[in-house]
Amino acid sequence: MELVCNIDRLNNRLTELGTKGALPIKGVSRLAFSNDDKLGRDLVVSYMKELNLNITIDQIGNVIGTRKGKKDLPPVLMGSHIDTVATGGLYDGCLGVLAGIEVINVLNEHNITTKRPVAVGFFSNEEGCAVQPDMMGSMVHQGHLSLEENLSKKDTNGETIAERLEKICYAGSTPVNTLKPFAFLEIHIEQGPILDKNQIQIGAVTGVQGISWQELTIKGISNHAGTTPMNYRNDAGLAAAKILCYANSLAVNGQLATIGVMRFKPNLINVIPEEVVMTVDLRNPNEEKLQQAENELKNFVKNLAKEHNLTITSKQVARFLPVAFNDELITKIEQKAKDSNLSVQRIVAGAGHDAQSFAPNCPTAMIFIPNKDGISHNIEEYASPKDIENGVNVLLSLVSDLAM
Amino acid sequence: MELVCNIDRLNNRLTELGTKGALPIKGVSRLAFSNDDKLGRDLVVSYMKELNLNITIDQIGNVIGTRKGKKDLPPVLMGSHIDTVATGGLYDGCLGVLAGIEVINVLNEHNITTKRPVAVGFFSNEEGCAVQPDMMGSMVHQGHLSLEENLSKKDTNGETIAERLEKICYAGSTPVNTLKPFAFLEIHIEQGPILDKNQIQIGAVTGVQGISWQELTIKGISNHAGTTPMNYRNDAGLAAAKILCYANSLAVNGQLATIGVMRFKPNLINVIPEEVVMTVDLRNPNEEKLQQAENELKNFVKNLAKEHNLTITSKQVARFLPVAFNDELITKIEQKAKDSNLSVQRIVAGAGHDAQSFAPNCPTAMIFIPNKDGISHNIEEYASPKDIENGVNVLLSLVSDLAM
Repeated sequence: MELVCNIDRLNNRLTELGTKGALPIKGVSRLAFSNDDKLGRDLVVSYMKELNLNITIDQIGNVIGTRKGKKDLPPVLMGSHIDTVATGGLYDGCLGVLAGIEVINVLNEHNITTKRPVAVGFFSNEEGCAVQPDMMGSMVHQGHLSLEENLSKKDTNGETIAERLEKICYAGSTPVNTLKPFAFLEIHIEQGPILDKNQIQIGAVTGVQGISWQELTIKGISNHAGTTPMNYRNDAGLAAAKILCYANSLAVNGQLATIGVMRFKPNLINVIPEEVVMTVDLRNPNEEKLQQAENELKNFVKNLAKEHNLTITSKQVARFLPVAFNDELITKIEQKAKDSNLSVQRIVAGAGHDAQSFAPNCPTAMIFIPNKDGISHNIEEYASPKDIENGVNVLLSLVSDLAM
Repeated sequence: MELVCNIDRLNNRLTELGTKGALPIKGVSRLAFSNDDKLGRDLVVSYMKELNLNITIDQIGNVIGTRKGKKDLPPVLMGSHIDTVATGGLYDGCLGVLAGIEVINVLNEHNITTKRPVAVGFFSNEEGCAVQPDMMGSMVHQGHLSLEENLSKKDTNGETIAERLEKICYAGSTPVNTLKPFAFLEIHIEQGPILDKNQIQIGAVTGVQGISWQELTIKGISNHAGTTPMNYRNDAGLAAAKILCYANSLAVNGQLATIGVMRFKPNLINVIPEEVVMTVDLRNPNEEKLQQAENELKNFVKNLAKEHNLTITSKQVARFLPVAFNDELITKIEQKAKDSNLSVQRIVAGAGHDAQSFAPNCPTAMIFIPNKDGISHNIEEYASPKDIENGVNVLLSLVSDLAM
């Protein structure tokens, strides 16, 4: 018998969760550790209770609901997050959590007993909006970040995370960094345009790109735009534009380059900029190639500073190694999709996800489904019921296999 | 007998005027129509009274002190402004006014009676800091701008210029747009690096560059820096950088190009900019060449918008035709400098000056002297007593000739 999910039930839960922190017209604002986060958490916990799961809350507020298996083995864990950005949608994170709930709901309905436990969790503060870093809960959970350090961090209101967790009644006692699942699976909207533009139903995620963030500060000399001949200028703005164009030229063969921030000083129409602060976001699934792009940019900047007689300093703001997911699981996802006559392609995750916290510790994989125009972190975020249904059925099939 | 100025007296007056609106450490903040402007005006008027000049205050607050000639002819008029930017120096504008005072002082000392009247004036709000436009007083004085319109303009405190003039007691009754001088002469620091770097003592100013200011608004699509492949992007920031580099490439053979303002939106490290607002400042002493640069940029922007699938709109913020000064006067300035063994070169004024208001109506010229490193509109602005003395002696000699 082929198990299938109940897409109406899942969609109703997505909609209901979207009422917690709902924005006036559409979309959701449910920042981690906020009162709306509490409402969302309480709702998901109520779903877990309906399914008779064994619920644990750990010291950083991660919540895991476990369905017993025949044996007391490490569980097959599904999960994601339910916190959102300030103007988010219904799907980012929530899909991964509620799909896990749905998978277990189907197992319950059919009275299927698996060998291994099957579990679903949601991890605190994946977005890192109110307090940095992102993926905080899963990173602490899997031992990559310090519990104490993160509990003492203050949000934008000056309250510590420990205080916030107490307030929203999610300061749990289950120790972090102890659970090593048998496998970790996360279904997520792509948050990019590739599947949607190519009309592909399932993305078999091969891993997460490496990320290199730097902030460059270019110091030139401020001067009058009308009285300073071109050859006497030390124009920080011109250097910034050249760096932007050069970084863009590096972005071929899967390398990404984005300049998101550009601040001119004094930023006046008739004054040559004396200082520019700009950011460079480089991403590549291949660490060697990412380093190559970093080095090429570094050399370009060095020569440019010399040529224009400027001082350019660089500060590394963030640096993540690429994460590779489990080959066997990636292949299984492809196979499951093909078996169900779904189109599938391998794809690299461009953004960070909780799954990458698990990847070093257990076989981990992600399933992507298309979302309209790739729009995410936006109230317009949308994934169709059909695409959700397809993705969750692949997840359901994979979990059943792994847990049997 | 060769007339020479008294540089100590002139320097003392520059220093004394610099005490009105003096900033804590150095420099001056004497915004037009402010209480400090009143103190500066009162001081210069007291100098005029010491020299027994006939003082008129016109309807926009311009003040002219006239020394009688043998005949009641149009005067040889010297002048500039005494308002400063918020962090200005002692020389910009003030030199032109106090040099005129000094020239008349020398004529008085030697009991020289000229055929024509010799006059010195200061014109309201040349800087246009508290209320736009710049060169307001001289432009109204010479009939290029409406008196009523400008009197009703409000400064940053919401007061009209008419009200401010009443408050500082400089709401005069002399009609504007009636005085057409025999000649207008303005001595000014270069406010640029050319004379200083080339160690030239006198600049014979050939005219003022044409100015074209535009603001470009580039609209692309905001997207995630990690999940959006390069070929799916509509990156407003990349287009802005390309425009900056292209504008810079147009700046050869005397053409100037400056991008002073660049505002990215949303200006976040991991978001492809959806909108950039940037300014382009183009200047050229030759109107035809300036138009050519404008057109080349326009075509580039048009093609770029098409190529990147962006909307780019342009708004003209300011447009001034180039101003040519009087050939005969320019040649006289060169000759006077050479006669005094001073190095001299022809030079184009990069910034606006009161003299350009007079140029269409009477023979007009400017004398530039070097200022240290070309730094102006800055508390570090500095011109040496020797350079001032050289310049004022050329002015004195020229005025004497013209008025005889």
